[in-house]
Order: sequence, then structure tokens, then C-alpha cells
Amino acid sequence: MPILPDIDDVRAAAVRLRGEAITTPLLSSPIVDARLGGRLLIKAECLQRTGSFKFRGAYNALVQLDAQRRQAGGIAYSSGNHAQGVAAAAQCLGMPATIVMPADAPAIKVANTRAYGAEIVFYDRYSESREDIAQRIARDSGAELLPPYDDVRIIAGQGTVGLEIAMEAQARDLTLDAVVASCSGGGLVTGCALAVKAMNPQTLVYAAEPQGLDDMRRSLESGTHVANDPAARSICDALLAPTPGVLTFALAQRLLAGSIAVSDDSVRTAMAVAFEDYKLVVEPGGAAALAAVLSGKLDIKGKTIAVVASGGNVDRGLFKAALEA
Amino acid sequence: MPILPDIDDVRAAAVRLRGEAITTPLLSSPIVDARLGGRLLIKAECLQRTGSFKFRGAYNALVQLDAQRRQAGGIAYSSGNHAQGVAAAAQCLGMPATIVMPADAPAIKVANTRAYGAEIVFYDRYSESREDIAQRIARDSGAELLPPYDDVRIIAGQGTVGLEIAMEAQARDLTLDAVVASCSGGGLVTGCALAVKAMNPQTLVYAAEPQGLDDMRRSLESGTHVANDPAARSICDALLAPTPGVLTFALAQRLLAGSIAVSDDSVRTAMAVAFEDYKLVVEPGGAAALAAVLSGKLDIKGKTIAVVASGGNVDRGLFKAALEA
Repeated sequence: MPILPDIDDVRAAAVRLRGEAITTPLLSSPIVDARLGGRLLIKAECLQRTGSFKFRGAYNALVQLDAQRRQAGGIAYSSGNHAQGVAAAAQCLGMPATIVMPADAPAIKVANTRAYGAEIVFYDRYSESREDIAQRIARDSGAELLPPYDDVRIIAGQGTVGLEIAMEAQARDLTLDAVVASCSGGGLVTGCALAVKAMNPQTLVYAAEPQGLDDMRRSLESGTHVANDPAARSICDALLAPTPGVLTFALAQRLLAGSIAVSDDSVRTAMAVAFEDYKLVVEPGGAAALAAVLSGKLDIKGKTIAVVASGGNVDRGLFKAALEA
Repeated sequence: MPILPDIDDVRAAAVRLRGEAITTPLLSSPIVDARLGGRLLIKAECLQRTGSFKFRGAYNALVQLDAQRRQAGGIAYSSGNHAQGVAAAAQCLGMPATIVMPADAPAIKVANTRAYGAEIVFYDRYSESREDIAQRIARDSGAELLPPYDDVRIIAGQGTVGLEIAMEAQARDLTLDAVVASCSGGGLVTGCALAVKAMNPQTLVYAAEPQGLDDMRRSLESGTHVANDPAARSICDALLAPTPGVLTFALAQRLLAGSIAVSDDSVRTAMAVAFEDYKLVVEPGGAAALAAVLSGKLDIKGKTIAVVASGGNVDRGLFKAALEA
């Protein structure tokens, strides 16, 4: 059995992130609450550095390297939020960063990652393995390879989102009935669960996943790792990991009350509500937890539920389409 | 000469608003900063209760009424952010609120104001005076009439935005070269100036206004109250006041470094940048200060400038159009 992170790892990450990550606000709308008949709190993690929670885990991992390891830099394979998180965290620490990206990655994602000072290594997604390329570079250069979720330091870093939610709720004298966070590989939701359950074991923690890509839900229900159908599609481009991680699944089995699958339509509606009632730009994957509540899949009547709006990196076309839904 | 608010009024307002108004975050984007060659801080006041700063002034005024006056309620004439601010502040205090609105006000604004528990009184904007109607209701009912800006309590409440900016900058060891806030009647920008100049007299404070509706700029330059051409138009629907208030103009003359007129096009660009780089939904009037910097009308090279994103109440069509600009 591998070593799992615990609440002390999350607390230590919170200390390391102080002054580096933004303590994002926990927002509410009396109008939405009246409509739902419950109290909904939105953790606006789309306002985090780089537009998603990924900065937290990346920074928590890289800051623990000694001076020599830092010189060798950090490396990650991702064309999305993890890439920007690693690039920005490395930049904060004055470290070089290399990101392995498919040759056909959207120009805006390449530009944003470069803007954080990272070097991009392209690969052909049809003939090459990004994991192999990243591991080879890491071996040759001594750079630290940062996995997107299945890593104690990454999970603990993402867990600071949950710690902030639980501490803010406590400061406001609110008892959280449930916390919901989006789930791809599971780093965010299991890290949050570590913190939230430590602060109040009664609070239920749920993952939110796209319908058809709900590998965590099916893995939890069957008690074993289940993978998604490779043909499954969703507008939640940040939530496409094929199966839960080893660490994240072990944590999920211990800590989660379940996982909720949400439709693309309910995600679009959630993006529009985030726009209208919370003035937030939320990307599809970042709206999954909100969709779980607004669609009624998780009952909020008479309850207090916090959802993580985990990211806001969405292109204009997709956002406009959500406002038309 | 009427009595003007001072920094003590703003500090007292901040104490009253503690736990009621949201301390909105001061956001930055390393990517935008690199592009501009300066440090830009955005005070995300669009995340405030009711989606604009107006809650602050309204609450600061209403909370100072004694129990008997509270029972008689609050009244305001507005179809916009001030209406929602007064309605929500009254609701917080368990007071009735009456809002005088034109009969042809957009349904969404009527619905939002009602959602905060206010009663709406409609008037015909072509044959009736909203001021007269509001004053008659106030006289008959004993309700407190809350002017939109020319009031010591309102200016002091809005000034807490500036106090939070100055305190946050101090906590981060940043010296503010300038602060910019949008200006309609001038309550927000002069309140902010009171706080910002008290914390650091070297910081320059500017108003931002729509081109053609830049009555504050022309009034400051001529040294006397100048009114806008009634035919002037702008997409900044929150910034249409015809001329500066008596109190706000007196404060502006003492405290402001000037006022910057911005075009509708630069406002649309600013809204798109707020979307893309800060993940914020900002309404046209709320983007005027950001537009003043991004358009180059206020030089930020090598400087640290904070701008207030004062509101986010924008309809979907207008927002989508800004993303197409």
C-alpha cells in the first residue's frame, strides 16, 4: 500500500502557499439561495493564479525541492490547467519548467504556458507517448516530473482549497452539510475531502464528473478501478482522465460519499448561473460541481453546501454558447 | 458650504460593513502585467453583494437609522445598481424598501430588485418625475430617501472600496502610484479618494467616465459644474448621471488628479480582458477604469495602479458582443 497524504500534509501545504496562492473568496447569492431553498457557497477558485486550482499542488511540490533539484527544473505533460500551474509555480520559484504538449494543442494554451516562462516540447499524439517523453527528459536533465494528480504533494496542495472552505465556514459559524468538487484524476476532490473531513467528519464530500466519463463513480460503486470508454466525450475538457489514480482512489474509497455524474447541458446551465448570479467566468469542468447541485442531483433544500468552481480557462466561443443555452 | 465626509466617516463605515459587505479580492495577472510593463491590480467589486459596490453605501446609510426610522423603511429611485443595493441592504436590516422605477425598466432589473424583497413603484419617464414621486412617498410614509451619490453616508460607504485597496496594498508592501474608479455622480471615486489619499497622499486618484458623458472631467477642468449633452450615449448604462453632485464635486476638486474619458470600444476591450485574464464578469460601466489603463490613457509603465471593477450586472447579449470585439 502506498503512503497516502493526510490532513497534516494539507496543513503544511497551506503554510507553504501563504502569500503565494490567492485565498479565493467563498461567494453566495441570496437570490439563488432563495430559489434553491438552501445555502449555496461557491469557492471561486477560477480566480486563482493561472485561472485554476492547479497552481496550488504544483507550487507545493516544487517548493519542497532543494536548491540543486530546483536548478534542474520541473517538467509536466499537459496541455491544460496543470501545464499552466506548473509553469507559473516554477516561475515563482525562479526555476526552469518544461511542458510536454501535443503538437496540435490550441495556440492560446501554448501562448499562456510560454507566458509563464516555460519551454514547450511538442509530441505527436498519434505516434508518441507523452509520459515516455516526459520521463526521458526528466531522467536526462534531472528535472522533477510532476504528475497531474497521483502524488502526495499535489493532492495535499489541492487540498488547501478544502481547508480554506472549511475554515471560512467555521469563521462564519456555518455547518457544511456537503462539499462538492470536480473530479478528473481525483487530486482536487480527495485533497479537499482530507481537509473537510478533518475539520468536520459529518460533512459529506462528493466528486462531480461528466456523464460517460464518470470513472470515479463507477470505480467507487464497483470497488475497483474502472476506466472510461475511450470514445466518451464531454465539453468538460479538464475532466477527461481515463481512470482514478492509485492514491486518489484509495482516498476516495475512505473519504467520499460518492460521485455525481452531470450532463453537458447541466454544465452549460451552471456556467450561465455563475455568469449571471456570481459574476464569475467558469470553464465547463470548473462548473461540474455547481451543476450537480443546480440540476437537483444533490439535494440542497434546507442544507448548506459548498461547491468548488475549480477553473475559468474557457475560450470565448464555448462561453458564449453556454450563455445561449 | 455643506459638510463633507472625511476619512473618519469612511473608517466608521468599514466597521459597520464588517461581516455584511464582502471584502472583495484585489486580483492581478502576471501575464497582463508583463504585457503592460507595470503592475495592475483589479479590485473585483463585481463580486460584491448585488453585483456592484452600491450595497456598501446603502447599508452604511440605512444601518445608522434608529429603530423607528427603520420601521418606516428606505426608498430610492433607480432602475440599476443603486436600486439593488438599497433593496438588499434593507433586506439585511429587516426593513421595508420601496424602489421607484420607470415603467419600461428591463424585466430582469425589476425581478432582481423584487428578489431582494423590495416593493416597486413604477412611473412614466416621459410625463412624471421620479424625484418628485420618491420625495412624496418619503414624506407620506416617513421612509428614508437614499440619494444615489450626493450624501455623506453613501460616499463614506462607497469609500470603503478604496480603504480596502489601500490596506491590502500596504499589507503586500506595494506603493500605489494611482487608483482609478468609474464615475457617474462621483460617490465611488470621491469616497475612494478620501481613503486612498489618507493612507498615502502621494497616490493619484482618477475618475473614469464615458466619452461624451465626461461631465466630471469637464467640470474639474472648468472649475464649475458642467452638464452632459442630453443626447450623449454610451454602453456604460451605470454612468449616465448628468452632472457631478454638490458634495462629490467639492471632494473631487480637492482630491482627484483628474478624470479620464474612455470610448465604448475601449470599454468592450476591457470587458474581454476581464473575462480572459481575470475570470471576471464586468459590466460596461464597471470596466471604465480598466479601460483607462488598457487603452494607454493612463500610463502604467513601471508603475503600480489599482482599478475598481465596480459592477458585473450586464445582460448576456451585451457581454457576448464585448467578447466579439
